Amino acid sequence: MRATMLYAPGDIRVEDLSEPKILQPTDAVIRTVAACVCGSDLWDYRGINEVSQPTPIGHEYVGVVEAVGGDVRTITPGQFVVGSFFASDNTCPNCANGYQTSCVHREFVGGCQAEYVRVPLADGTLVATDGAPADEHVAGLLACSDVMGTGWYAAVAAEVKRGDTVAVVGDGAVGLCAVIAAKELGAERIIAMSRHESRQKLAREFGATDIVAERGEEGVARIKELTGGIGADAVLECVGTAESMKQALPSTRPGGDIGFVGVPHDVAIDGEQLFFSHVGLRGGPAPVRRFLPDLIERVQSSRIDPGKVFDLALPLDEAAEGYRAMDERRAIKALLRP
Amino acid sequence: MRATMLYAPGDIRVEDLSEPKILQPTDAVIRTVAACVCGSDLWDYRGINEVSQPTPIGHEYVGVVEAVGGDVRTITPGQFVVGSFFASDNTCPNCANGYQTSCVHREFVGGCQAEYVRVPLADGTLVATDGAPADEHVAGLLACSDVMGTGWYAAVAAEVKRGDTVAVVGDGAVGLCAVIAAKELGAERIIAMSRHESRQKLAREFGATDIVAERGEEGVARIKELTGGIGADAVLECVGTAESMKQALPSTRPGGDIGFVGVPHDVAIDGEQLFFSHVGLRGGPAPVRRFLPDLIERVQSSRIDPGKVFDLALPLDEAAEGYRAMDERRAIKALLRP
Repeated sequence: MRATMLYAPGDIRVEDLSEPKILQPTDAVIRTVAACVCGSDLWDYRGINEVSQPTPIGHEYVGVVEAVGGDVRTITPGQFVVGSFFASDNTCPNCANGYQTSCVHREFVGGCQAEYVRVPLADGTLVATDGAPADEHVAGLLACSDVMGTGWYAAVAAEVKRGDTVAVVGDGAVGLCAVIAAKELGAERIIAMSRHESRQKLAREFGATDIVAERGEEGVARIKELTGGIGADAVLECVGTAESMKQALPSTRPGGDIGFVGVPHDVAIDGEQLFFSHVGLRGGPAPVRRFLPDLIERVQSSRIDPGKVFDLALPLDEAAEGYRAMDERRAIKALLRP
Repeated sequence: MRATMLYAPGDIRVEDLSEPKILQPTDAVIRTVAACVCGSDLWDYRGINEVSQPTPIGHEYVGVVEAVGGDVRTITPGQFVVGSFFASDNTCPNCANGYQTSCVHREFVGGCQAEYVRVPLADGTLVATDGAPADEHVAGLLACSDVMGTGWYAAVAAEVKRGDTVAVVGDGAVGLCAVIAAKELGAERIIAMSRHESRQKLAREFGATDIVAERGEEGVARIKELTGGIGADAVLECVGTAESMKQALPSTRPGGDIGFVGVPHDVAIDGEQLFFSHVGLRGGPAPVRRFLPDLIERVQSSRIDPGKVFDLALPLDEAAEGYRAMDERRAIKALLRP
């Protein structure tokens, strides 16, 4: 099968690999209908995370079940399914508490920019759509497998509720999906921090009521100005850098909450600053599985359309161009069709 | 009037100062019935916080209102009142959100180990008891002015709810009051981390179901052992050191919460560790004012007795001995009677 491999920083190739097989009785193998390139893949692509050998890449996927192991009960061949980047049993105490990405049996689902994917713990990981989805919903369902689930978690972690003022730090696909989440959870005012016109436009389309192009101290000052000097009720930190966290903390009102979903790189939080801020902080790899049934329903009913974050669609063989376009910020997010 | 002054590390004196007066029309002056020494006073006493000149000290107080300014409406002379260490207007947006210690007009109420105290913003800061309190309730009401309010906030910030397993890091007065709070909020299992027999005993009396004497990695391992390998639902961090935070974070289950109320000294939280822990974190100077009406009622109805944290009572003139006893951990908390 055709599969995307990262050889070294900047070096993406699509090659022939052997097809994945059922290894455990709880596995499924799916035929990928769509995959995509993630902002977090760029950490590897840019050489910020070390790459020591050619590695299959990609962790977002939707597809049709080809085969299941003997212990799989709820997932059956032929179903169209959406999964998460961490496989989970969905029964352990952490799963029961809604944190499937901390499942005691979790396994990373990698190498998804490929024609076929092996998904461990299929019953606890995959969620079938309501029948075969309409073509126009495929991109949205793919978004649910990571960026929409992650944006949703940012809003849930920040305890967004009806009437809130929410600021979103980061205008990548996750930040844009976080705008959708804030809107769906009833936020009254949604401030998107973005300096890119096309992303500002999409943020508005998704429900942003205000755009703040300033960053750093000026960005904080603008948020304060828009919130009666107090700060936002909830701030969704969708980047994962020291700068973005420095943006988020003083933009949040005392007693407000930050949901942080960008994987932190060299971020240290000053205990004293956090203490006196009165701000609540929760982050982590999004437990996408918790939200999948609800998100799939919202996409299939056309209530939300997170598929719009894909502003580039390429055949799988052109994956390298997808990486380049995202790296150069020519594209928000690239969809790959095997 | 007699008042306690900190001259230098280890040098506490009780001296004659002039009585405080009404300076603002929103002030009250109260005659102190009881004051006390706080664990956070020890940071100054030990020279960890710099003391550059002789300074009146103490921020916990109950007393009888002597005089009020012309704009004070709800507080009247003769009332027995409990206040917080931060004066608040109780009307600004932060107060309305329940974070009176982030009041936009907040003022620290200092110099309370004295015969009289000036309390700014009296209407928003002081809460009158239901009539003159019984003698046996005075110590408990005094505890509400800080340590009981702070322990309560730790439990609220950690979102303790019915049936939870709660671990309390720190066996000082705040940690012990946090045990009371966890119990009152319905925790089923309360693990007190303490290696001091007298404090273990009081923790059990307050509702602790388990005692963990181990610290560091061994302490974490014991908490995990007691919680099915997952960690506690809520951890109340009542110390404020790098060590105590290192104790708290891995003791909390994924999706659980830490309430941290010890003023952090040189605490830096690793963003990546916090991220992958899925733990929620909220701290800060406790908005005691939010809880005072409820806590006063619980004390006056003898439902809780946080006054038991005072295992030493001295005349104000012997304040220096109160500091020594707490510094040497001979006493949990010293009450001072002017």
